[in-house]
Amino acid sequence: MTDCIIIGSGVAGISAALTLKANGKSFLLFGSPSLSEKIEKAEMIRNYPGLSGVTGKQFAHALQTQLADENIEIINEKVGGVYALKDKFAVLTNDQKTYESRTVILACGVESVKQIDGEETFLGRGVSYCATCDGFLYKDKTIAVFCTSKRLEHEIEYLSDIAAKVYLIAMYKDVAINRENVEIIRKMPQKIDGAKRVEKIVFAMPPSQNLPKELAVDGVFMLRECVSPAILMGGLDVKDGHVVVDRDMSTNLSGCFAAGDCTGRPYQYAKAVGEGNVAAHSVSKYL
Amino acid sequence: MTDCIIIGSGVAGISAALTLKANGKSFLLFGSPSLSEKIEKAEMIRNYPGLSGVTGKQFAHALQTQLADENIEIINEKVGGVYALKDKFAVLTNDQKTYESRTVILACGVESVKQIDGEETFLGRGVSYCATCDGFLYKDKTIAVFCTSKRLEHEIEYLSDIAAKVYLIAMYKDVAINRENVEIIRKMPQKIDGAKRVEKIVFAMPPSQNLPKELAVDGVFMLRECVSPAILMGGLDVKDGHVVVDRDMSTNLSGCFAAGDCTGRPYQYAKAVGEGNVAAHSVSKYL
Repeated sequence: MTDCIIIGSGVAGISAALTLKANGKSFLLFGSPSLSEKIEKAEMIRNYPGLSGVTGKQFAHALQTQLADENIEIINEKVGGVYALKDKFAVLTNDQKTYESRTVILACGVESVKQIDGEETFLGRGVSYCATCDGFLYKDKTIAVFCTSKRLEHEIEYLSDIAAKVYLIAMYKDVAINRENVEIIRKMPQKIDGAKRVEKIVFAMPPSQNLPKELAVDGVFMLRECVSPAILMGGLDVKDGHVVVDRDMSTNLSGCFAAGDCTGRPYQYAKAVGEGNVAAHSVSKYL
Repeated sequence: MTDCIIIGSGVAGISAALTLKANGKSFLLFGSPSLSEKIEKAEMIRNYPGLSGVTGKQFAHALQTQLADENIEIINEKVGGVYALKDKFAVLTNDQKTYESRTVILACGVESVKQIDGEETFLGRGVSYCATCDGFLYKDKTIAVFCTSKRLEHEIEYLSDIAAKVYLIAMYKDVAINRENVEIIRKMPQKIDGAKRVEKIVFAMPPSQNLPKELAVDGVFMLRECVSPAILMGGLDVKDGHVVVDRDMSTNLSGCFAAGDCTGRPYQYAKAVGEGNVAAHSVSKYL
């Protein structure tokens, strides 16, 4: 069993990984080979000590080089759930794999797009965060797919192979999905509604000329780069969408630490780097 | 009046300065043109995200370049005291100058050499932290000077011009003081003792062949790179030598924030950088 699982390959997760490595701890780092969309897209970073006026791309490249130098690999699987067991954690990925560790560092960032009304209410009753986990439930059915990032388009394709009809609510630019059974919508929904299970997705106004205000659906997939920590991990103390942490980055769950944007503002590289470092030291102390 | 005074030019202070600059706030940064002895002396830094395996000297150089690029100047004066007034702060330097600001960020680091027994008891009654402030009180007298850094040797010279006899307790290498009235001691004292005022400095064993265990002195100067925050600023909540801060780096004194090693372990660049950033954001919010 590994000492720690780090969830997220933004600067907080990378900082934690570098420090765990320096401390001689074993760990797995889950994230994306391109690290983080937020870093990549940064135009110019001016207030990160040690790097003068770098672009996001240059910063990402420097981090990738550093990870390679330290032989740190990123496991390119999306984490779907974290479970606190008796004296260990089980991490489930959307590839249906399970990993175990003594501690966890949540560095999963924060999603700029808000939760939709009804999203939490219908979680597990028609609302899903994982195409590969729950897609098969919607064979020949009608679903809505809410997606915030172009990088998740393969999940949309996966779903459109299964479902009869997909309403793609696309919250990103340059949509490259072109399938007969996929209808693209550009409006933010108002709420997800139903009785026992999801029955419809509701808009404030008709989302297009051809569509009514309410769309009857059997399920809704919420595809985001960052899954909300509260949804990722049951029992976690979360306030206003941010993980509640102490000065040592410990959460309310023993052995579970958090770092970076998911713990709150300011959403800054320096802050994330600092918290990742502190979380890693706290993990070492805890082990 | 300036928005903020930052005390300390280690990475925490620099991070705060870069972020205040980015936020368009006015500030003064007090420290040393060579930034921080701790950075300079670092052999190799491996876990600071973005800089792969740099030496302390390379890191210091990168920071100096960045400060120059951003037109941030370091005021090379040692801060002797910080006073919280009604709605502002007064910062006194050892050059006897006073500066005022709306907020303060303490980024003064932590001294690796422990306090000496009696140091706080006799503060202002024979114990001083400032050669230029209190030196004149010891004209033709006998004093002990406890010094932890070669960079403070000019203060020793200043004192040896005034006092009749100086016992220099040197806690650093390559002492370059060579004066008739200065006797160099290499042992850590056990305590500072006296009745109403300092009367003697006591060692566990005779500090040299020619000297007894107890040396009669009229005063003791404690010259350290980092003055303890509790001594720097009266009324500040300090625990085990570290400034007590909240998650937003606020201290118990309204408008006074702290960042870096002075707030506690881990003593790491990444942690200091993160706290400096958060402190600067909190200052902006406070103003």
